[in-house]
Amino acid sequence: MRVKDVKKVVLAYSGGLDTSVILKWLQTTYQCEVVTFTADLGQGEELGPARDKALLLGIKPENIFIRDLREEFVRDFVFPMFRMNALYEGQYLLGTSIARPLIAQEQIRIAEEVGADAVAHGATGKGNDQVRFEIGYYALKPDVKVIAPWREWDLTSRTALIAFAEQHQIPIAKDKRGEAPFSVDANLLHSSSEGKILEEPWDAPDEMVWQRTIRPEDAPDTPTEITIEFERGDAVGINGERLSPAMLLTRLNALGKANGIGRLDLVENRFVGMKSRGCYETPGGTILYAAHRAIESITLDREAAHLKDSLMPRYAEIVYNGFWFSPERRMLQAMADESQRSVTGMVRLKLYKGNTIVTGRQSPNSLYSMKHVTFEDDQGAYDQFDAQGFIKLNALRLRLGAMAGRKGGAL
Amino acid sequence: MRVKDVKKVVLAYSGGLDTSVILKWLQTTYQCEVVTFTADLGQGEELGPARDKALLLGIKPENIFIRDLREEFVRDFVFPMFRMNALYEGQYLLGTSIARPLIAQEQIRIAEEVGADAVAHGATGKGNDQVRFEIGYYALKPDVKVIAPWREWDLTSRTALIAFAEQHQIPIAKDKRGEAPFSVDANLLHSSSEGKILEEPWDAPDEMVWQRTIRPEDAPDTPTEITIEFERGDAVGINGERLSPAMLLTRLNALGKANGIGRLDLVENRFVGMKSRGCYETPGGTILYAAHRAIESITLDREAAHLKDSLMPRYAEIVYNGFWFSPERRMLQAMADESQRSVTGMVRLKLYKGNTIVTGRQSPNSLYSMKHVTFEDDQGAYDQFDAQGFIKLNALRLRLGAMAGRKGGAL
Amino acid sequence: MRVKDVKKVVLAYSGGLDTSVILKWLQTTYQCEVVTFTADLGQGEELGPARDKALLLGIKPENIFIRDLREEFVRDFVFPMFRMNALYEGQYLLGTSIARPLIAQEQIRIAEEVGADAVAHGATGKGNDQVRFEIGYYALKPDVKVIAPWREWDLTSRTALIAFAEQHQIPIAKDKRGEAPFSVDANLLHSSSEGKILEEPWDAPDEMVWQRTIRPEDAPDTPTEITIEFERGDAVGINGERLSPAMLLTRLNALGKANGIGRLDLVENRFVGMKSRGCYETPGGTILYAAHRAIESITLDREAAHLKDSLMPRYAEIVYNGFWFSPERRMLQAMADESQRSVTGMVRLKLYKGNTIVTGRQSPNSLYSMKHVTFEDDQGAYDQFDAQGFIKLNALRLRLGAMAGRKGGAL
Amino acid sequence: MRVKDVKKVVLAYSGGLDTSVILKWLQTTYQCEVVTFTADLGQGEELGPARDKALLLGIKPENIFIRDLREEFVRDFVFPMFRMNALYEGQYLLGTSIARPLIAQEQIRIAEEVGADAVAHGATGKGNDQVRFEIGYYALKPDVKVIAPWREWDLTSRTALIAFAEQHQIPIAKDKRGEAPFSVDANLLHSSSEGKILEEPWDAPDEMVWQRTIRPEDAPDTPTEITIEFERGDAVGINGERLSPAMLLTRLNALGKANGIGRLDLVENRFVGMKSRGCYETPGGTILYAAHRAIESITLDREAAHLKDSLMPRYAEIVYNGFWFSPERRMLQAMADESQRSVTGMVRLKLYKGNTIVTGRQSPNSLYSMKHVTFEDDQGAYDQFDAQGFIKLNALRLRLGAMAGRKGGAL
Repeated sequence: MRVKDVKKVVLAYSGGLDTSVILKWLQTTYQCEVVTFTADLGQGEELGPARDKALLLGIKPENIFIRDLREEFVRDFVFPMFRMNALYEGQYLLGTSIARPLIAQEQIRIAEEVGADAVAHGATGKGNDQVRFEIGYYALKPDVKVIAPWREWDLTSRTALIAFAEQHQIPIAKDKRGEAPFSVDANLLHSSSEGKILEEPWDAPDEMVWQRTIRPEDAPDTPTEITIEFERGDAVGINGERLSPAMLLTRLNALGKANGIGRLDLVENRFVGMKSRGCYETPGGTILYAAHRAIESITLDREAAHLKDSLMPRYAEIVYNGFWFSPERRMLQAMADESQRSVTGMVRLKLYKGNTIVTGRQSPNSLYSMKHVTFEDDQGAYDQFDAQGFIKLNALRLRLGAMAGRKGGAL
Repeated sequence: MRVKDVKKVVLAYSGGLDTSVILKWLQTTYQCEVVTFTADLGQGEELGPARDKALLLGIKPENIFIRDLREEFVRDFVFPMFRMNALYEGQYLLGTSIARPLIAQEQIRIAEEVGADAVAHGATGKGNDQVRFEIGYYALKPDVKVIAPWREWDLTSRTALIAFAEQHQIPIAKDKRGEAPFSVDANLLHSSSEGKILEEPWDAPDEMVWQRTIRPEDAPDTPTEITIEFERGDAVGINGERLSPAMLLTRLNALGKANGIGRLDLVENRFVGMKSRGCYETPGGTILYAAHRAIESITLDREAAHLKDSLMPRYAEIVYNGFWFSPERRMLQAMADESQRSVTGMVRLKLYKGNTIVTGRQSPNSLYSMKHVTFEDDQGAYDQFDAQGFIKLNALRLRLGAMAGRKGGAL
Repeated sequence: MRVKDVKKVVLAYSGGLDTSVILKWLQTTYQCEVVTFTADLGQGEELGPARDKALLLGIKPENIFIRDLREEFVRDFVFPMFRMNALYEGQYLLGTSIARPLIAQEQIRIAEEVGADAVAHGATGKGNDQVRFEIGYYALKPDVKVIAPWREWDLTSRTALIAFAEQHQIPIAKDKRGEAPFSVDANLLHSSSEGKILEEPWDAPDEMVWQRTIRPEDAPDTPTEITIEFERGDAVGINGERLSPAMLLTRLNALGKANGIGRLDLVENRFVGMKSRGCYETPGGTILYAAHRAIESITLDREAAHLKDSLMPRYAEIVYNGFWFSPERRMLQAMADESQRSVTGMVRLKLYKGNTIVTGRQSPNSLYSMKHVTFEDDQGAYDQFDAQGFIKLNALRLRLGAMAGRKGGAL
Repeated sequence: MRVKDVKKVVLAYSGGLDTSVILKWLQTTYQCEVVTFTADLGQGEELGPARDKALLLGIKPENIFIRDLREEFVRDFVFPMFRMNALYEGQYLLGTSIARPLIAQEQIRIAEEVGADAVAHGATGKGNDQVRFEIGYYALKPDVKVIAPWREWDLTSRTALIAFAEQHQIPIAKDKRGEAPFSVDANLLHSSSEGKILEEPWDAPDEMVWQRTIRPEDAPDTPTEITIEFERGDAVGINGERLSPAMLLTRLNALGKANGIGRLDLVENRFVGMKSRGCYETPGGTILYAAHRAIESITLDREAAHLKDSLMPRYAEIVYNGFWFSPERRMLQAMADESQRSVTGMVRLKLYKGNTIVTGRQSPNSLYSMKHVTFEDDQGAYDQFDAQGFIKLNALRLRLGAMAGRKGGAL
């Protein structure tokens, strides 16, 4: 921002050192009122200390917002995305990407509540998160002012940051004085690690990188068998017990963690134009993905499934790039949701040392017809003679091509 | 075929009971000369007995064709398909589908050599293979006559088949008298099992179904680490040893088998309109798929990768449905091959109890730029300030939408 | 149908010679009760004679169904299709294709009402219409028996047909004794002509082929200017006068006809595998298509528009092939309809000798921002400096590629 | 550019007032050597004056580059694009977009020749052209410095610009003192006009906007009939006369102009995020587009054609956004070119008052089979009975869906 006249800013505040420095920097640089927003998205940290620290840094109590968004996160963001079987670049379950629009939305909600004219976040200038936050802000409040301190300030070294903190009496935990060996983001869906010691893509990640899952080697020698129940595309229960979205994902995370499931070490393409390497842990999501595909396998029509598959990469790209609150995401969601009406039933899985193995699927809406598929006598359900006409008309254009001298389908 | 005047037919002949019955049935029904063609696609069976049996059934020696197609299979069919990362319905590596066009092509080649006017195969009338064979035949020789005995004859029960065999002095192995508990297809890429005891999708497959891989539970407790070397999109070596395509896949199969890798239990959608359940084992292919994605992750441009991903489902559908020799497959292949020029380098993997874990990738063509991605000072390689303009223009259409009253990207 | 036990059949009956012969043939061949269904889809023929002729041929009054489906046709079939801007193979407005599912649906409705177990249609065995009718039947009543006389009977020459008619006292209009020089299908959306004298694609169609439009050469020398009003993606008025869907299309047809608009002479690809040549007249539809694109141009978000455009060919293919009542069509419809909420406004057009020229568009939901686009001072609405960052990050992957030796974006 | 150390810059120089001011501004601001590059892309202006003016402004003769790129433009840019039938947003033939990468490429070539470290262009900061130029520069010479004066300087009003020109003795043509009523870009493919008096999308464009075509109303009352000959996807002759690419397009332009063909008045979506209104004239291109589709209609396989159609919007978007020199464009080009091998033959067209009417197509590679399509006896070429099996298997999944309670294909 080159010229700005900010009166009140809502900061996405974790309570950690970096966002505390940002908080203070906003106060000193913009001379504006700062409102902090801290969300529980299942990242596994207590939120009390964030409140205490905000108070300590001079934020008025009425300007401190702490909200538990775990159910909303899973119900309105994670589950819709899983209805599409979204995988970015064929592999990544989008754990960080999907949390950003919810945070942005809540910041804007609070900005409207408190009459703030600006928002700020702590994402760096090289990553995707700045894009995801800011696209969300602009889509929801087009006149909002956006402050991205990491792109603006001159605290570009750890030393400068610590010096600023000391100068402004910001408490610094002992283990935060030095540089972290890598950077972490976490929520109920996943944990991601990147940067520093992970930057060389030829080096395997150090074991300490993994925080949400045990090593497959350390998982039990005996498989764990579970069932997951689905209704209209969403998981609603485990082993017959009905669970809220966040409770269900929490349960799956525990199961995945214990069985060494959901690790991914990936080089991916960022929206801002470079490649980066990330280590992701999505224990529950990995199980959920397998189960959802399995329940779809018996309840989705072939062309419905193929249409979804063909648009999945686009959907994943939209989410990855931060365009959750966009017409194109809503359009694809409408398409996917239309297909999920019949995606109801149960899947049985075996979890074992990193493997998620589907061992059964059933549904009251099953399109799998034993009568049609059987090797036994099908009592006329399927007339094999029909196959001849089917093949001949499917081949006709190729035969005409070959007659016109294009053997082998060569054009 | 309602009316036919067949003079000479080339039969895809395995030497087993079923195709031996077909052989005899063709002789008696069509009164025509029968030419047998038996291919080694790496299915793991000796071909000598097929020759002996054909002779026994009265086929003239010059009418018996036995060919080792393993290298051609991997080089010209499997590898091009892997350049596309093809997965049917998100999971199936197309092991059966990819072998059919090669068999069809070789049958047609032989038909041209011996002046045959017809071809015949032993696929049933409910499956995909009949389509794949016949589409291949018609695309390569548009005037060929196609005989599909399973759709034509009245040997619709095991009893009738056995009776026909006995009546025509076809030797019957003891274990072939009864019904097989499921049906198997195999080649160098995979083994598939389906039918009979596998028809209930809620029941987990019996362990005897798996023939190419050991149980993950039975695999070694210690991971195996390997490297795979790629050149222009194709694997060319393992652990630094250069290998021919078929030798390489054979080696990967052994590695996969030993580590319990490559099992898949799937309900899929057949081209002929029904769902079916298959149990697939693709040990080497599963490793190759992971390795290819990994080498692409550092050598492919983002949009090149996303374009390929968006067309992969269509490509996989084309291969699954049997349209290998079609203009659309060649067009997509041309697109994919164009992208693979720079896909050269090495991937390191850890194989462990069913898991294929990428632990490193490197390439002389790497697009991964440590300088750009680093959390450290990048010496001006990337100007973080550029991100602001990037985000603002990307958000502009959403801001204009929101100003026009469409908050949240709602249309 | 090889074996059949038909009790009561609902025939799509036009009252013409061909379907009268079918009517009688059904009675004599299947010895079953025949129910006739005649629909007014705006084909421009009186329906009274169809009733009289059915009575004459011995159909009981309670078995004669005549229904005016014009409003349903435009509202529930034509308009949803136009929301997608559907053009088959880039050109064809799908006038025949879109009528077939409605006829099939009404036949099935009547079959349920009268307890019929079968349906019959008069489409030939080489065309698309048989597929469209029968896919519709099966999708709506999966156990229905389908009779397609043209594929079953031996009345394969005009002479045989006339002889059958004479033998069964079916009245034959004088001008129907000889072969028609081409075949025609018509409804409120279009008229199509094909076959016979139109079969040579190098020959221009004879002027007598065109029945719905005058020659552009014969149209007025003075343009006609109109406005079309849209609400949520559908046209609702012309020149400020609110009109029902069918009335609106009727009015546009008159305007198009008078100005020589909507002729198309096309070689297209049939679903059954061959190419065919058709001459289509879609006067009102051609105007509506242009107007709809124009109103979308100011009301649709860019990515919404591009997503629709990218899926349009698939949607058009689905409709052309006869899969209106399919999950994939419903999914794409849901996607498209989601985008149309804001497609409200007015378009002005000039109609002149075959040309449909958009001359203005306006909307209360317009996303066109004079302030942003202006060459004049925009008072800060758009910061040109943002463009630099936008370009630099968009170019980053290409620069990294070029640095890795891939100049010119060559891979 | 915030900090820069430019030694020698290659400027895309038209000889007009604006780029003359830029030339002088570069000299004074960057104190660097300026090289001018003026291209003949068929814009219809003499290039001699540009040389004179560059000399006058102090450019050394060896630093003045004037090149005739017309043949390269049509052969290597326009024709490859027409092989894809590219239309941006369903309508725009991309006349401006396709010229930019060629100019960028030539500027970079010259920069390499003369050892320049920078390039500059005269495009504004709100449009697409800046993106197209700069993406091209970066893709071809990743370390190049880019100067975009319109984003950098303070000559933001006409008055300031004129004052600067006067101050630096830049000659100003009388008619250039005032503001132009709209802005124009032209080349051999098209002419575009936008801005100022064209900014209100409800107002029809003034007739003076159109410079390349006469009004349809003013075109001859008698149609002009022509043939266009194609080889492997490219036009090679008109009326039997073989012509070079640029000569052919020039001829088509004359034909189009005389018949009032190729006007388009469009609101489109810019890459930089806003909508804009453009008036385009593409007389020859409009004819070429229609002819190419027509020759494809008889020579392209159905699935080849549909695959192209489904990717056309993506290709058009790539070209529009300026990514000509990208891997994704090359991949799609490889796909399209693979399909064009058989696109050889002749098309006959009638040009009449704005209409381009295809009246015939023929090809030695025609896939149109009179024998298969005929309404007459086809002597067994097509067995109508095959259609039954074809339909039944295509309907099977919908029947299974309906049996599972999803009537009408509802999911």
